[in-house]
Amino acid sequence: MNYFTKLEERIKKAGSLVCIGLDVDLEKIPKHILSKNDPVFEFNKAIIDYTKELVCAYKPNMAFYEALGIKGLKSLKKTIRYIPSDILVIGDGKKGDIGNTASAYAKGMFDFFGFDAVTVNPYMGQDSIEPFTAFKDKGIFILTRTSNPGGADFQNLHCNGKPLYQKVVEKSLEWNTNNNIGLVVGATVSQELNWIRKLAPKMTFLIPGIGAQSGDLEKTLKNGLRSDGMGAIIVSARGIIYASKEKDFAEKARKETKKLKNAINKYR
Amino acid sequence: MNYFTKLEERIKKAGSLVCIGLDVDLEKIPKHILSKNDPVFEFNKAIIDYTKELVCAYKPNMAFYEALGIKGLKSLKKTIRYIPSDILVIGDGKKGDIGNTASAYAKGMFDFFGFDAVTVNPYMGQDSIEPFTAFKDKGIFILTRTSNPGGADFQNLHCNGKPLYQKVVEKSLEWNTNNNIGLVVGATVSQELNWIRKLAPKMTFLIPGIGAQSGDLEKTLKNGLRSDGMGAIIVSARGIIYASKEKDFAEKARKETKKLKNAINKYR
Repeated sequence: MNYFTKLEERIKKAGSLVCIGLDVDLEKIPKHILSKNDPVFEFNKAIIDYTKELVCAYKPNMAFYEALGIKGLKSLKKTIRYIPSDILVIGDGKKGDIGNTASAYAKGMFDFFGFDAVTVNPYMGQDSIEPFTAFKDKGIFILTRTSNPGGADFQNLHCNGKPLYQKVVEKSLEWNTNNNIGLVVGATVSQELNWIRKLAPKMTFLIPGIGAQSGDLEKTLKNGLRSDGMGAIIVSARGIIYASKEKDFAEKARKETKKLKNAINKYR
Repeated sequence: MNYFTKLEERIKKAGSLVCIGLDVDLEKIPKHILSKNDPVFEFNKAIIDYTKELVCAYKPNMAFYEALGIKGLKSLKKTIRYIPSDILVIGDGKKGDIGNTASAYAKGMFDFFGFDAVTVNPYMGQDSIEPFTAFKDKGIFILTRTSNPGGADFQNLHCNGKPLYQKVVEKSLEWNTNNNIGLVVGATVSQELNWIRKLAPKMTFLIPGIGAQSGDLEKTLKNGLRSDGMGAIIVSARGIIYASKEKDFAEKARKETKKLKNAINKYR
């Protein structure tokens, strides 16, 4: 089944556009978990147990698992397997390399880890993206205008009269022959979000930057949602998973998720 | 010690600018190795044993190890440990993410895997690069103008009157306060290589695209070398490691490495 069809089914079932970023940092998780055999997995398991019916997707960022080496990647694989199959799992690896190498990355992300979707970096152009989109049932989110301060360094440069991120949108539309491309656009840049929505009225956006990065929710939804109130995945990581550093962390995560889910639905 | 100082010591000692890309693909390595316990490591070990005094660096591309999952990453770590410490090991992962996430990647690449240098993708700007350059003794190669066909899609767009890759060079020079930044420039784009050398006369370039990607060696060196005959690392992967698919693969790899080393030194 097409990734975005599956995503929309899940959004409807859960009534939620919330995606929780599973960005586990051993220095930030509750201390009582550290003594467990696989603290990263135990932390994720508790978060998933308490939030699963409130979300459309989870998004582990590869960096936090790679930082822990082989052990971290084992915890990641266990986490992915633990997530119920109707909830989508986005592997945030921002991969980008030449054709034959991108194929190897796609194999790792889809075949080994079993992600439903990935994020990719457009800097190396078409042959760095195609090996991912060739997986017709998988979703590919192309970095377009990112939420971080450095996002403007290159993405906002005017290239042949248009900002670079607009060129990325245009190419993404052109490359989307399998209907499995979405765009990553930060919640911190609501003006750009508005323009990008106009350029790609039908595409699904993966939108980080709410919460710890302090993007404005109302503006984000006004500018980022598709006209049918769908087409946007709102990511929150630190604001949810580190809502409490005590034994009640999973309950507090649930509370924050519910709050975000409801706040979003007010504007849909 | 500064990465580029260490690199130049190695280049002088080995009399070589050759870097072998350890891009192991189980479908391409000699069949007799597949029956071994850790075929990826055994393949790399043989290549290293036969080529080590002829190279300045090895460059494993993360994709080929990630494609094999946890097992592949274990083989990678073993490979890195096996490489003699005076030969530099470049972790080709083309990472790029927001500040706190980039820090996690840097930790994984430098602390867990123990790479001497990494490649990074500039699309997300300054705060995606800084966590890497903060490791003062490590080398950071920023993708500038890549060797693949899609490299032109965005990198050659004219942004405020200059090609995007030129903007990347300018920012790289600005960000280079720890003198540990180099640039990735493909051998397949010799005109751009020439311009980038003029923009960054002192920087070290990591140059893939010789061999399988058919970049021209003479032009590459004429355009890419620094005036002192240094400042360039010439990468060859498939042309060396898959020179033979028979039992003599390591000897053939040695022969190809020697040939490339000597061909390069003719033009220095």
